[in-house]
This record gives sequence, C-alpha cells and structure tokens, in this order.
Amino acid sequence: MAPVRNAKLIFNQFPSGLPEPGKTAIYDTSSTIDLDAVDLNGSVLIKLLYISVDPRIFPSSFVIGQPCRGFGIGKILRSEKEGFEKGDYVVSSEMDYSEYSIPKEYLQLLEKVIIEPGLSPSVYVGAAGMPGKTAYYPWKEYSKAQKGETVFVSTAAGPVGSFVVQLAKLEGLKVIASVGSDEKVEFVKSLGADVVFNYKTTDVQEVLAKEGPINIYWDNVSGSTLDAALGNAAHHARFICCGFAALWTNAGGAAPMKNLANIVTRRITLTGFISTDLTDKWGKEFKDVVPKKLASGEIKYKEDRTVGMEHTMEALVQVLMGKNNGKKIIVVSED
Amino acid sequence: MAPVRNAKLIFNQFPSGLPEPGKTAIYDTSSTIDLDAVDLNGSVLIKLLYISVDPRIFPSSFVIGQPCRGFGIGKILRSEKEGFEKGDYVVSSEMDYSEYSIPKEYLQLLEKVIIEPGLSPSVYVGAAGMPGKTAYYPWKEYSKAQKGETVFVSTAAGPVGSFVVQLAKLEGLKVIASVGSDEKVEFVKSLGADVVFNYKTTDVQEVLAKEGPINIYWDNVSGSTLDAALGNAAHHARFICCGFAALWTNAGGAAPMKNLANIVTRRITLTGFISTDLTDKWGKEFKDVVPKKLASGEIKYKEDRTVGMEHTMEALVQVLMGKNNGKKIIVVSED
Repeated sequence: MAPVRNAKLIFNQFPSGLPEPGKTAIYDTSSTIDLDAVDLNGSVLIKLLYISVDPRIFPSSFVIGQPCRGFGIGKILRSEKEGFEKGDYVVSSEMDYSEYSIPKEYLQLLEKVIIEPGLSPSVYVGAAGMPGKTAYYPWKEYSKAQKGETVFVSTAAGPVGSFVVQLAKLEGLKVIASVGSDEKVEFVKSLGADVVFNYKTTDVQEVLAKEGPINIYWDNVSGSTLDAALGNAAHHARFICCGFAALWTNAGGAAPMKNLANIVTRRITLTGFISTDLTDKWGKEFKDVVPKKLASGEIKYKEDRTVGMEHTMEALVQVLMGKNNGKKIIVVSED
Repeated sequence: MAPVRNAKLIFNQFPSGLPEPGKTAIYDTSSTIDLDAVDLNGSVLIKLLYISVDPRIFPSSFVIGQPCRGFGIGKILRSEKEGFEKGDYVVSSEMDYSEYSIPKEYLQLLEKVIIEPGLSPSVYVGAAGMPGKTAYYPWKEYSKAQKGETVFVSTAAGPVGSFVVQLAKLEGLKVIASVGSDEKVEFVKSLGADVVFNYKTTDVQEVLAKEGPINIYWDNVSGSTLDAALGNAAHHARFICCGFAALWTNAGGAAPMKNLANIVTRRITLTGFISTDLTDKWGKEFKDVVPKKLASGEIKYKEDRTVGMEHTMEALVQVLMGKNNGKKIIVVSED
C-alpha cells in the first residue's frame, strides 16, 4: 500500500506560563508512513484514536523537535510483541502525539484494555482511565470518609472532581462543590451534590462558613480556595491535594495564605499524590468496579470533545483556564 | 495551722495578638488557704511546683476572673482520691496557675508520674513530658524516617526541636537545623546536627537548596520557612506540622506562599497533630524509653528557668518570640 500521512504534534519550546498554540508545539503534516512495510523491530504499530487533555506541566523529558507525549488510547494495527494483537486497544501515559507510532522507549508502558460493552474507547482516557483513577485511588486511600461527613470538592465539574462528587454521594456524605460557571452548577447538581456554587459569583469562604465545617477537602485549585478550606476545616480534616488550577494564572506569584496555623491547631492532614503510586493497591478493584458502573450509568461522566490533534494546545489552555465542559478529549480518529 | 498565701495568676482578657503582661493575666496574692482544714470533697490538694511555658493559644474555655491553666507538675499534700497519696508527683494539662489547688472539673486529667532518679520533677513538664511527647509521638508515627534521609528541623533549639534533632541523629539521618541566634547554633551543633544556621542572618532557601532536598520537615514556624521547605522537598516528603511561630507576629496577615504546587507535584504529605491523639499508640514506649535516656544523657535537654509565677506572661511572650534558651519553665516552688 502507498504511504499515508502521519501528522504529529511536535514539541517546540517550553512555555514560561500557559502553553501557546503554534509556539509551544507545532502541528506537522509533512511525514508519511507505509503502514504495511514499516519495520516494527519487535514493537507494535499503533493508530492513535483519542488524546486525554489534562492540566499538566511539560516534563523536562520532552525533547524539542520530537512529538509531544501523554495519555492516549490507540488501536494496534500490527504487532511483533507478545501479548498484543491486531485490533487490541492500548492505553499509555507516554503515547506519541502522532497519528501512527511505533513505541520504542515507552513500549513497556503500553497497557491493553478490554472495552466494556456500551463504552467508547475514549472513556478509557477519561472516567475509566487516568482521571477516574486519579479520583478513585486517593479517595479510597486517603479520604477516610465516614457516612454523614461533609466533603468540599473544587473544580467539581471536571473529570476528576465530578467523579469524586459521585463517590462521596455513594458513600453517604454531604457534598459541597465549587465550579466555574452557572451551566456547570446544573451539571454537578445533576450528579447529586448537595450544595453547588459558581466560585466566580459566590464567595467560597461564605459558603463554607455556612455549610461546613468540612471533614474532607478535594483540592483541585490550591491558593485562596485552599486557604478558605483550611479556615473552615473540622478537626482531623483530610485534604487531598490533586491540583492547583488557581496557581497557573499566578506564575511566579505567591498565594497569600491566612489559615496555615489551622493545619496545626485542627490537626489537618494534606496529602499530595500521584495516582500511579497507588495502582498496586487499588488498580484491580478499579478495573473490576468502575467500567461497569460507567456503562450502567451509576457513575456519570461527561466528555468535551475537540476534533483534530492540531487543536491540542488550545484545548490544554482551555483546561488550564477551566473553560472545558467535561473531560477534554482530542479526537484524532474515531476508529 | 494558720492559713497561708495562695497566689494565683488570674486570667483577665483574651489577647488580640501577643499576650500582654499585667493585662492578659493578673498576679493576685490576696487569697489564702488553710492547707490542713480545706475541704477536699473527694479530690486532692496539690502544691504547684513547675509550670511549662509553651507557645499556645488561650483556649476559649478560659474563664475571665479564674486562674489560667496549663501544663504543670505538682506534689500531692493531701488526698481523698484513690490512687493518689501524699508525696505523689502529678502532672496535668489543666493545672490551675495557683500555688495550691484542689482540682474538680479536671481531676480526671491528673496523671501520677514516678520521677526517674537523677531527673528534676521539672523535666516532666519538659523533655520527659509534653514537649518530649510532642516530639516523640509524631516522629514515630509520621516521619517514616529512613537511615540516610535528610530532615530539616526549624526552631531546633527549642524543647521540641532539640528533641527531634536527637531522635533523627539516633536514627541515622542528616539533620539540617534552623535556630534564632548564634548561641543556639552552638547548642544545636552540640546535639549532633549536621548543618545548623541562624535564620536571622542566613537565608533558609539558600541552605536548603545547597543541603537538601529534604525528605522530612519538622515545621515549628510555618510561613516563609514552610514555603522554602516545600520548594526544596524531595518527592514523597513528609512534613510534620507542629507549630507556627512565624505567624504569631503576623496576626491577621497572610503568608505569601510560592511553592504550594509542590504538594501535588512532589507528592508531599503535611500532617498536623496533637500529641495526645497518639498517646494510646506511643505513650507506653515513651515512658519506658525516654526518662532513662534523659537521665543517662543519651538525649540532652536544656531548661530556661524563670522563678516566680508572676512572670509567666513575660515568659510566654519570650517563648512566642523565640527568645527563650531551652525549655521555658516557671519555678513556682522548688519542692
């Protein structure tokens, strides 16, 4: 067969603040690939389907002139590696942003997934994938949730936050949730959250003073919201530190914190985590439980799809600014 | 016998910032007590010996016009309570600041202590008492110290910090320690700390950048020192949040924090605690191990004594400002 286009998103320079489309990475359609003839050298040939767009820092391992990498799901077109066959779906945290790729360095990170009937493969970079695990593993490990307790979830309309809201409701907690638009308020209310507010028009401190104190805080934003949560924490509160969206627009600046003393006086624990550290403990349960609950609708999820790899940096900026509406997915190919 | 003087330190008003001697509490020598005839109503008659002066907030349970309360050690003069006899030494976290007292509300908090030969009873409100436990329990519970790791201890010349420095050295860690004067530098070096600096003349950020990254941070100060520690933390660092001395002089203000994002990206855990929560788990080991090590000199301690209960508020201000030189003790009576 004749070679086909193999478009890539090439990493171009480290951003100093928010990534800049056309500067941080460049969409390059000049390459081609012969899908039948290309040498695999013991690896696999992957067709990229969906890219997960997550708030993240560009790692120092990124090489200028090489494709960006990140969470994605693809389909095996050819395989010379044991355990992988044509037609298998594979996810990786180091998937090349390239329509077709043959992983070398990161081959061992490929993970085969069986798609639950009723779910799109895209869900495996969302609620059934990294964001789902980012919610599920630390919630199970660190929340020490007790029925009747109160949890505050920030960025509650996002893929992680919305998952946490539902886990908390399944376990009988009162859920206070903050989101960034009135539309998102309605979405998070539909997930069962008890108190939902738009932090752009409602003061978080006032809400927490009225609806708290909080036993658990799921922190996706840090900064002044973290400070308000510290100010309204119950004794022995558990803070799960998952993200710092509020700090992105504040690069180099300092977050003024008034309530740090409460860490001591109220015996608060704050835990930063990377969900992959918890895979051994919670990975199997997640695989057994979550995809079924997603397919049945017991746990809801929302995708915000952008078609075309060339729009990845714009999508990343949207996510970092909280402008996405559900789990942000880049559709590279539907199949 | 004729009644004797029973001087008290009477709580007068809640301070808005630092306590003010003569205003926050008033020394009152107008009461007397008949030690032989006073009715005990099933309680005990205590002669107060030593008061512990700790950085603390005046609890809302304090009653204006009643004596201040806090950690202290006394001697039983008479007893109507089973388990306590004349001559017993007793400690309590709610000891009345009164030369003689008959506990009612807090009778159940009295704890009998057997004084280890070679130790002054005053050590039981210091290294063998609350400050020692405040160092020992959370170090055992939360530090997860591994030989060869690096710990940073702030306020390292204080009763808690100096104890932590020695625990860390006993367990084979590299110890970086900050103190508030050149004299304290020498004291903490004598305890075996590897790197000791005066934070008033040396930049904590520079020291940690050179000597870190740190695996454990024992935080007695919060604020900018906590921020520098976050900036120089190793992945999976454990921060034990014990105090917030730097925030006392900043009442109502906000601490500008630049490195909060590292909690997430470096998977840092910060744990606030109250050592009494850990008594069940570590109390027995502490009693078995620590007084002997103090008496033998294996763990060193330093007392900074002030004679006379009337000087308690001045002493508290000294402690809050870091002007004490060792564990601050008020000597009410030597025996």
